[in-house]
Amino acid sequence: MPTTVAGFKILAESLEREIRQGAYKAGEKLPSLREITRERAYGKNTVIAAFELLVARGLVEPRRGAGFYVKDIAAPGEADTPVHALGRAGDLVWLIREQLNDNPQAIRAADGMPPAEWLAGARLDRVHHKVARGGLGALFSYGNRYGYLPLRQQLVRKLGGLGIEADPRQILLTHGANQAMDLVLRYLIPPGATVLVDDPGYYFLFAKLKVHGAEIAGIARQPDGPDLDMLEQVLIRKRPRLFFVQSVGHNPTGSDLSAGKARRLLELAEKYNLLLVEMDPLADLKPHEQARLSALDQLQRTIYIGSFSKSLSAALRVGFLACSADMASELADLKSIVHVNSSEYAERTVDTILRERTYAKHLLALKSHVAQATRQSRQLLADAGARFFCDPQESLYMWVRFDGLDDSLALSEHLTAQQITVAPGRIFQVDPSITSPWMRLNSGIVVHEKFQAMLRQRPLW
Amino acid sequence: MPTTVAGFKILAESLEREIRQGAYKAGEKLPSLREITRERAYGKNTVIAAFELLVARGLVEPRRGAGFYVKDIAAPGEADTPVHALGRAGDLVWLIREQLNDNPQAIRAADGMPPAEWLAGARLDRVHHKVARGGLGALFSYGNRYGYLPLRQQLVRKLGGLGIEADPRQILLTHGANQAMDLVLRYLIPPGATVLVDDPGYYFLFAKLKVHGAEIAGIARQPDGPDLDMLEQVLIRKRPRLFFVQSVGHNPTGSDLSAGKARRLLELAEKYNLLLVEMDPLADLKPHEQARLSALDQLQRTIYIGSFSKSLSAALRVGFLACSADMASELADLKSIVHVNSSEYAERTVDTILRERTYAKHLLALKSHVAQATRQSRQLLADAGARFFCDPQESLYMWVRFDGLDDSLALSEHLTAQQITVAPGRIFQVDPSITSPWMRLNSGIVVHEKFQAMLRQRPLW
Repeated sequence: MPTTVAGFKILAESLEREIRQGAYKAGEKLPSLREITRERAYGKNTVIAAFELLVARGLVEPRRGAGFYVKDIAAPGEADTPVHALGRAGDLVWLIREQLNDNPQAIRAADGMPPAEWLAGARLDRVHHKVARGGLGALFSYGNRYGYLPLRQQLVRKLGGLGIEADPRQILLTHGANQAMDLVLRYLIPPGATVLVDDPGYYFLFAKLKVHGAEIAGIARQPDGPDLDMLEQVLIRKRPRLFFVQSVGHNPTGSDLSAGKARRLLELAEKYNLLLVEMDPLADLKPHEQARLSALDQLQRTIYIGSFSKSLSAALRVGFLACSADMASELADLKSIVHVNSSEYAERTVDTILRERTYAKHLLALKSHVAQATRQSRQLLADAGARFFCDPQESLYMWVRFDGLDDSLALSEHLTAQQITVAPGRIFQVDPSITSPWMRLNSGIVVHEKFQAMLRQRPLW
Repeated sequence: MPTTVAGFKILAESLEREIRQGAYKAGEKLPSLREITRERAYGKNTVIAAFELLVARGLVEPRRGAGFYVKDIAAPGEADTPVHALGRAGDLVWLIREQLNDNPQAIRAADGMPPAEWLAGARLDRVHHKVARGGLGALFSYGNRYGYLPLRQQLVRKLGGLGIEADPRQILLTHGANQAMDLVLRYLIPPGATVLVDDPGYYFLFAKLKVHGAEIAGIARQPDGPDLDMLEQVLIRKRPRLFFVQSVGHNPTGSDLSAGKARRLLELAEKYNLLLVEMDPLADLKPHEQARLSALDQLQRTIYIGSFSKSLSAALRVGFLACSADMASELADLKSIVHVNSSEYAERTVDTILRERTYAKHLLALKSHVAQATRQSRQLLADAGARFFCDPQESLYMWVRFDGLDDSLALSEHLTAQQITVAPGRIFQVDPSITSPWMRLNSGIVVHEKFQAMLRQRPLW
């Protein structure tokens, strides 16, 4: 930016804007005269004049021989644009923003994550020196298009433990499980085509399908899995290509697919040429013996999607999918086209943590937390008069209703005033305009003292 | 997986497959009896029988009191599926895979990255303890939907240095610059709509546009920027909404937009209601005074996309965009829907590195490397008879041709046998079926001794 007659005013205004917008904190030193002249290509006198103007406006103060420091002006903060969510629960953006909003005061029973205390045992901070020693100083390029090989090799074993045989070329690392869903969708589904989902189901997936322009057909979720009679009718009528289904610890109901239903579901998939995308984000929180479609089918008509967000940290954004080698190669190309690659940096961190001796111990502790919170929450909720969709076992999610409450939105709105968020059932429905008495509660949050106190209130709403 | 009569055979086969597929390295210990019984739900005797079968098959060996160890069997390796690229250069997948393929023997003049030595100064490994101390142990959630605030605040300053005023709510952190392009595309462009691009231009972008179903219209790139007469004709005829354009250090030609053309381009954008997406991945490698559309326009009809891949590490996958606050909020929602969020873990690492005192020094050294390699490469190529598209200044990319060479694919194929890759011009064209004499060379690679030796060969092809 060349110096002009009023260059110092332009520079001062620019710095003022940056200060008011929070680029410099109160008490922080502004860049030096020398830095500013170099970085912004202003002359020395122009910069000095701009500093003086900022002092005159009360925004910065000079400290003798130490430069200019930002004064404490009322900062604008970073409160997000309000989304008036509960009035328009149909808008999936509300719950999505809710997940991405950190108000430490709130009791977030609407949250889909394990409580932070459960995850602390993985010690993301502790392994950092090992990650750094592992060659980070030479990590500049995009990496292998499938993702970091040693981590894929570890996933071969992890999947083996679930009864799923896959070699490393069948495994694609992704920017979280959600990128895996997005890739599958973009690879297999032309806009306008029908895609099947669990109903109720995963709202991030519904939002992705809407953005993609797919037609969503919900298959009612029962306590032992999808309603297969309804499924067969839809298969006959619409001939869809894909069904996104969650076998284990289903979000939002917490239900598990029964072994019998899993077999019948695979028979229907065979008969009607349907691909099953098995989403399994809670694999590390549940016992291994649960029926999984990918294990019964060995990735013939199944695509398995996994995550580390619920057992390590969602901030890493490391997920994966497993499928046939041919499809994995094409999905890897699609991943390259869309985002060049997933982050080898984050993948090396996950790889390091998984190789720690303490990791197995962390997983055991995590499972034990889930089992205990499930037992305790079930009791607390039953005592408060809740009815359960299914008998939840080792479940992060509980799908409950209360007699006399026809629309859980009413309770949700009532609790918001007490800084307690619960996720009303409508949000998880393919058609959110239909009233629902159900709500999803996080068993790890239900056990909190503040939530328990709320449950003891009479009447509840 | 329940124990059956032949359970030990199933388990042995499963372990054999995992060993052959590289999940366990030669000399590595298999999981213990206890671990396998617990993780895979087999009985103790079944696991012992399976181990014995693996010993009999010569795959593992017992070590007294220490468990079972994998023997050295010929491993399958991880060579990627070959893509016969040069025969079908039209296939963008070739160059994309080439970027994601690391053969240490090859001289990759086709590469789009700065040489690793230039980036080593940022010391990704050194800051790791600081990142860990910064609260990683409590980093479990998805984070702010715009991305990590302190990094966005630093970007306010960085953009200020380029003459672009933006507050933190106008900045969205993304999974690399490529996710930013993908989000803009999905947000603004219905399938079938026409999108303008520099021609030649960025092949990852072309591939994204094809996947999205957009119609691509190339605007010829001249040494001082896009051909504005051609642009106006296309604007009148097709009324497109978006033009993806690179002002500074254009990929592949290395050319810079002139200040005069920048102003005329903005006038056309205003007249025809066109949005300009300014891709600026090389901002840190070039002098600051270059004309930028986003600085002249202040993000009214411009969207700025930046990257850390060319100045820190592509493996981090941290990029960003800046635009109006309203659009940034909607793009943040779209980012959430598609991938929940970008990685706060990687963003904190970038934030830490940018706050290091040594970072400014690293950037100065990087700019000096580029300037020196440009001067030296220009001389070497001129001596070898090359002609230049423009006079490249501080440029990672050089767009060159040789008299008598009508199709650079011939030279590209010839050099591949010598393990030297150059990027033939066709790959960067909107229509790759048209013969091109041009090729893109990486100035940081041209100066390598092996490449210089190749340039001294007569004839060159």
